[in-house]
Amino acid sequence: MNIRKFVVSLFFLIQGHISFAQNEKPNVVFILIDDLGYGDLANYGHLIAKTPNIDKFAKQGIKFTNFYSPSPLCSPSRASMLTGRTPYRLGIQSWIPEGDNVYLRQHEITIANLLKNNGYQCFLSGKWHLNGGLNEKTHSQPQDAGFDKWTALHAFAIPNHKDPINFFEDGKPLGKIKGYSGTIVVDKAIQYLDERDKNKPFFLYLPMNEVHGQIASPSKYLKKYNKYIKEDIDLVNLKDNGPGEYYANITFMDSEIGRVLKYLDKNGLDKNTIVVFASDNGPVTSQWRKFYEINLNGSTGGFRGRKADLYDGGIHVPALMRFPSQIKPGLVSSEPIHGYDFFPTIFSMLNVPIPKDREIDGIDISPLFTEKPISRNKPLFWAFEMRPSDDPEGYFYAARDGDWKIITDFEVKKVKLFNLKIDRFEVNEVSKANPEIVNKLKTYILEMKKSIELDPLRPKDVSAPNMD
Amino acid sequence: MNIRKFVVSLFFLIQGHISFAQNEKPNVVFILIDDLGYGDLANYGHLIAKTPNIDKFAKQGIKFTNFYSPSPLCSPSRASMLTGRTPYRLGIQSWIPEGDNVYLRQHEITIANLLKNNGYQCFLSGKWHLNGGLNEKTHSQPQDAGFDKWTALHAFAIPNHKDPINFFEDGKPLGKIKGYSGTIVVDKAIQYLDERDKNKPFFLYLPMNEVHGQIASPSKYLKKYNKYIKEDIDLVNLKDNGPGEYYANITFMDSEIGRVLKYLDKNGLDKNTIVVFASDNGPVTSQWRKFYEINLNGSTGGFRGRKADLYDGGIHVPALMRFPSQIKPGLVSSEPIHGYDFFPTIFSMLNVPIPKDREIDGIDISPLFTEKPISRNKPLFWAFEMRPSDDPEGYFYAARDGDWKIITDFEVKKVKLFNLKIDRFEVNEVSKANPEIVNKLKTYILEMKKSIELDPLRPKDVSAPNMD
Repeated sequence: MNIRKFVVSLFFLIQGHISFAQNEKPNVVFILIDDLGYGDLANYGHLIAKTPNIDKFAKQGIKFTNFYSPSPLCSPSRASMLTGRTPYRLGIQSWIPEGDNVYLRQHEITIANLLKNNGYQCFLSGKWHLNGGLNEKTHSQPQDAGFDKWTALHAFAIPNHKDPINFFEDGKPLGKIKGYSGTIVVDKAIQYLDERDKNKPFFLYLPMNEVHGQIASPSKYLKKYNKYIKEDIDLVNLKDNGPGEYYANITFMDSEIGRVLKYLDKNGLDKNTIVVFASDNGPVTSQWRKFYEINLNGSTGGFRGRKADLYDGGIHVPALMRFPSQIKPGLVSSEPIHGYDFFPTIFSMLNVPIPKDREIDGIDISPLFTEKPISRNKPLFWAFEMRPSDDPEGYFYAARDGDWKIITDFEVKKVKLFNLKIDRFEVNEVSKANPEIVNKLKTYILEMKKSIELDPLRPKDVSAPNMD
Repeated sequence: MNIRKFVVSLFFLIQGHISFAQNEKPNVVFILIDDLGYGDLANYGHLIAKTPNIDKFAKQGIKFTNFYSPSPLCSPSRASMLTGRTPYRLGIQSWIPEGDNVYLRQHEITIANLLKNNGYQCFLSGKWHLNGGLNEKTHSQPQDAGFDKWTALHAFAIPNHKDPINFFEDGKPLGKIKGYSGTIVVDKAIQYLDERDKNKPFFLYLPMNEVHGQIASPSKYLKKYNKYIKEDIDLVNLKDNGPGEYYANITFMDSEIGRVLKYLDKNGLDKNTIVVFASDNGPVTSQWRKFYEINLNGSTGGFRGRKADLYDGGIHVPALMRFPSQIKPGLVSSEPIHGYDFFPTIFSMLNVPIPKDREIDGIDISPLFTEKPISRNKPLFWAFEMRPSDDPEGYFYAARDGDWKIITDFEVKKVKLFNLKIDRFEVNEVSKANPEIVNKLKTYILEMKKSIELDPLRPKDVSAPNMD
């Protein structure tokens, strides 16, 4: 706490002016979906699941067709999107099992920390997953990350999305809550907005539990996809009931997001609210591997790999932004962008300077909102601890520079190179034919690795990447 | 040739009597589908693809819900089903790329060899894939394996299933043939049956090219699944058009099989013909990995893994048998059976003794046809050369004994144990809790390994298993 407060204070001593008057400051809503694949929304090509609210939202702002999450797993991806920094700098290198001694350090500055220091009320409703538990006294909690009020659970709803028992509100366990996770989370978000100080702008962080397992959806959504649901025919403990339950959960998620968007409309907040929509990583997809991977019907839209892979299937996901006064409606951008870009972009939109005392890996992508080019100072970067399940050799780093994407092992020796312009499914490995590109990208990854290792804010007690 | 002829002759000197009179001998039709997953047929739970002919066929005989192909790849699986022997004995340890010096040896006895020696006319129409090429002079060809007339291609239709250019007939290349592979193969099969000597029984081996990539189906089938086909939205070389094209190929395959079954009905052959239907391995499923894996929409029905894995997704596939005079219609058997069981079972049904001069790994499962128990003398066995793509550690052997399934590495040291009764998706690895079962199955695998290495008929020039 002390280190963070000191750093934040120091930063604000040197920050520039804020051009919005207090009562004009735009609100910010960040909707983050769990394990939603590139192909899981109707407007990204799903042929069955209906997502009318998100489809409409996509037309009101900018739709990214080359958005990458910062990691193929949830905790690092979320930590990075909230701070603008690649997750290894933060010491969050893999997903955090409950009870693990891994957490977002107090000296990191989240979107909420910086907004709060700019007079915002900050609310969180949904999934946290940035520490070892919401009752873990020695770990930072959502209030340390800038949230004034919060209702959250650790990683996923237990026992499943119906009547979950593991939500906490402002540090206190809530016990069993009747209803479905999506409704609980959105009800709470709307309550926070209703009860807010209307003289202040707000930040609502809404990391929904859908469509991560174990899903459950109200019967009205299940009925829509009855054709795609079957009774399990074998009398064994594990069941596969077909994709209908997953499609229902997507539409349920869409409908709950619709409630938030309608709330903004009804209360005249739609024009002055920046809304961000994204997914934290690719879908689990089609094969049972672990008990908690119970939704097997996510779609990568054909991309190779899935959650926990550095192939595009693990990190290339949907993302949308809306803000009528700055984002031209109906835009579709194929510019490669990264989840760590949200932090500098949002603060650029708000004309709030970002911290200069630390490495921010993201860049301001707001020129895209008026169809202007952006210029990135370094390739998109990923470091990832868990051995990718799709590949026997294990790959740990990746970078994308224009159309080229490299994936390397932990020692940055073995490489895979793909040209995504002609090979978006990463089938044709072309490192041998392109030695200069391989060398350039290997050098870049080694420099990033060194920069991360030398980052003064990186926790010193984080264990080396797990080689299992 | 000489060795095989000698062995076969030797065998027939000592064989027992045949109870069927020459003109009463049942015919045999063996329909083998390429890469068809457990969940790919309507009667095995597919929610969208229609397979009315196979559904009807399933009700006329016995449906196996625990049938295993002999390998998770095509060449070894096919070699094993035709000989009753585990593929490593035959020296066919992985799929055979065109030009490779791997082939089914002349001294092996196939179903066709043994039937031919019992007075059958033997026809092949479809995919061979048991040598390095159909014009490879030094390799055995379908005629050496007992086929009097044959039309076949090596591994898959080139350039795709429409107007293929790589069929051979009795050793001669046919050039480009107009039409779709399924129709070409069934037309030829029906031609062989029409032109046959009606005083002799026949064996038709019909290894269809469907639903292996690169699929193509007539427009009438594509139209049925129009809802599930999308236009590719990104201008890149590789395309993903959704699952509709795959569903259409399944229904097209079903319809072509329907033509064969109707031919048997119309010609009064249905009662006196044993019909076998099976798949050679699990589906490619949902992720692009290689160019030739162009059909990404196969379903394992939830099973873990896919083609090239020893998890059930790679080897647990559909299988049906029909023979009204011996198989009670409407049976569903959950008895674990193996592709190498077809050989002894078919000859038991025909009352033809099988060779005693060699190890036959399969057993006669015909007691199941009248709901009697079978007793297997050893667990189901798999050896597999290619490193399973789903697992970074690489697994090479597997065995199933009752509800227990073990998967081991090449040295039979690292193991995975699953109890399929309560965990049919192989999620819960339980080797530590069951050391006696692990020991028993490891010992069995080591014995099988030794038995294979010492098998006098195993080719001596087969390279050691490829470790990557």
